[in-house]
Amino acid sequence: MTAAVSTGFDFAAYLEAARRQVEAALDASLGPERPESLREAMRYSLLAGGKRLRPILCLAACELAGGEAALAMPTAVALEMVHTMSLIHDDLPAMDNDDLRRGRPTNHKVYGEANAILAGDALLTRAFEMVALRSPGVPAERLLAVVAELSLASGAPGLVGGQVVDLECEGKSVDLDTLEYIHLHKTGALLRACVLCGAQIAGASSELLGALGTYARGIGLAFQIIDDILDVTASSEVLGKTAGKDLTADKTTYPKLLGLDESRRRAGALVTEAKTALTPWSDRAAPLLALADYIIGRDR
Amino acid sequence: MTAAVSTGFDFAAYLEAARRQVEAALDASLGPERPESLREAMRYSLLAGGKRLRPILCLAACELAGGEAALAMPTAVALEMVHTMSLIHDDLPAMDNDDLRRGRPTNHKVYGEANAILAGDALLTRAFEMVALRSPGVPAERLLAVVAELSLASGAPGLVGGQVVDLECEGKSVDLDTLEYIHLHKTGALLRACVLCGAQIAGASSELLGALGTYARGIGLAFQIIDDILDVTASSEVLGKTAGKDLTADKTTYPKLLGLDESRRRAGALVTEAKTALTPWSDRAAPLLALADYIIGRDR
Repeated sequence: MTAAVSTGFDFAAYLEAARRQVEAALDASLGPERPESLREAMRYSLLAGGKRLRPILCLAACELAGGEAALAMPTAVALEMVHTMSLIHDDLPAMDNDDLRRGRPTNHKVYGEANAILAGDALLTRAFEMVALRSPGVPAERLLAVVAELSLASGAPGLVGGQVVDLECEGKSVDLDTLEYIHLHKTGALLRACVLCGAQIAGASSELLGALGTYARGIGLAFQIIDDILDVTASSEVLGKTAGKDLTADKTTYPKLLGLDESRRRAGALVTEAKTALTPWSDRAAPLLALADYIIGRDR
Repeated sequence: MTAAVSTGFDFAAYLEAARRQVEAALDASLGPERPESLREAMRYSLLAGGKRLRPILCLAACELAGGEAALAMPTAVALEMVHTMSLIHDDLPAMDNDDLRRGRPTNHKVYGEANAILAGDALLTRAFEMVALRSPGVPAERLLAVVAELSLASGAPGLVGGQVVDLECEGKSVDLDTLEYIHLHKTGALLRACVLCGAQIAGASSELLGALGTYARGIGLAFQIIDDILDVTASSEVLGKTAGKDLTADKTTYPKLLGLDESRRRAGALVTEAKTALTPWSDRAAPLLALADYIIGRDR
């Protein structure tokens, strides 16, 4: 929305309003869960704050495709549930063994390993319940397409596959192709699902879905490059998680392979590529364009 | 199918044929999974044999409701994937800490804890992919209803909720209501989903769905009572898993609360209740009626 940007699209206000709506929807999503202890463990991580980029991307893509954001809210919540599940499981002692997440003890540190594994499992299935049972007003065909996207992004072809390769590569020297494979699966697949699911709820054309796929690939990789850069340059206090962890775990990162300057340049090029893909829809794309810039400009 | 029973419904042949078809579908279901190591871990547990009762119940319910069993096969596979996921996660050191399952080392013993957790996650999401992307010829509304059943049965309102309460009750004295709560959630919910999903794929009436719910509740509880009885009476060699484990873990079981005889009587009554619910559909119910008898007569 080049026009809107020049006429003053207020991204900060947009982001704050969207985040507040998402927080409210997340807070309302886990009412009747039982037993109490399981619901608590699910809520602890789901409501731990965070940027809520994934649900906001979903809502923005739905609006870009001409749909009402409210129709996509249950799916936006589902996407954050899947993301939260992946954080809980990744933090487990058997995986990344992290004690700190978003400035607080990780789920298993508070509730124990068994409950953390089960809270993750419950959030993952709850995500599909949000789409299939709690998305009134959206045709079944579209919801089924969302279920398909969500399952591909969350499982072996996405998140889980990326995490497996990531764990396998720890302590090994990894080339750029493998690093990109890891990030396109571990982070990129779900970000991609966010924009595609949002757009599909609005019944987007295949052209728009294709463009959004390109957009998502660009911001997904850029997001991860920035993550790697921040791990080197920011402190634990700012990040809210253990900084320098990649170095300790001897993980290959973009800065390690390309240096900081080239990593920053590459992230910039990817964001430009992402924004360019949306040119034909630029009159409605202000939020997604600003989100792309936000991702590269963030400091945590 | 009382008539068919008297004219000689061959349950053994039915069971064997259904099991072969299910095995073939399970074997074909994990072709393109990557990375290789993840696919191997998924296949190891998914293809570890077992009775395949859940997929067979799904196919039989679809046929009872007038549908072609082949239409329900992807959902039948999905249900076995969810069941397999729950076994892999339940066996983890942080949960039941089991080394042996179906006569072989458990998943984490072979592939390590991280891969076992991730293989479970991947099977869970893969289940939803089976329904949403790999179920040709079934209307979207019906598939969405299957996704809903599957998510409820797998998560906090089902499997996961039951496992949480089960773990919380370990070493504590538990009353009959709590024991029933655990089993209705931990085992019963997924068995219920099996028959309901199969029937929904065939577009079953709400009357039939109600009757199948009653049927499923009966066989689900009976199944668990028999499981508890077998844990006391059978050897590890016959069971293919560690026998006497409930006693070691100081778990409350039906035999412990009611004694062996009363437990057997109760299982019998539940199976009768289950079969009675299907009376109005008895001309097509031979497989489900025989499956109910099979559950109570099994020795492993």
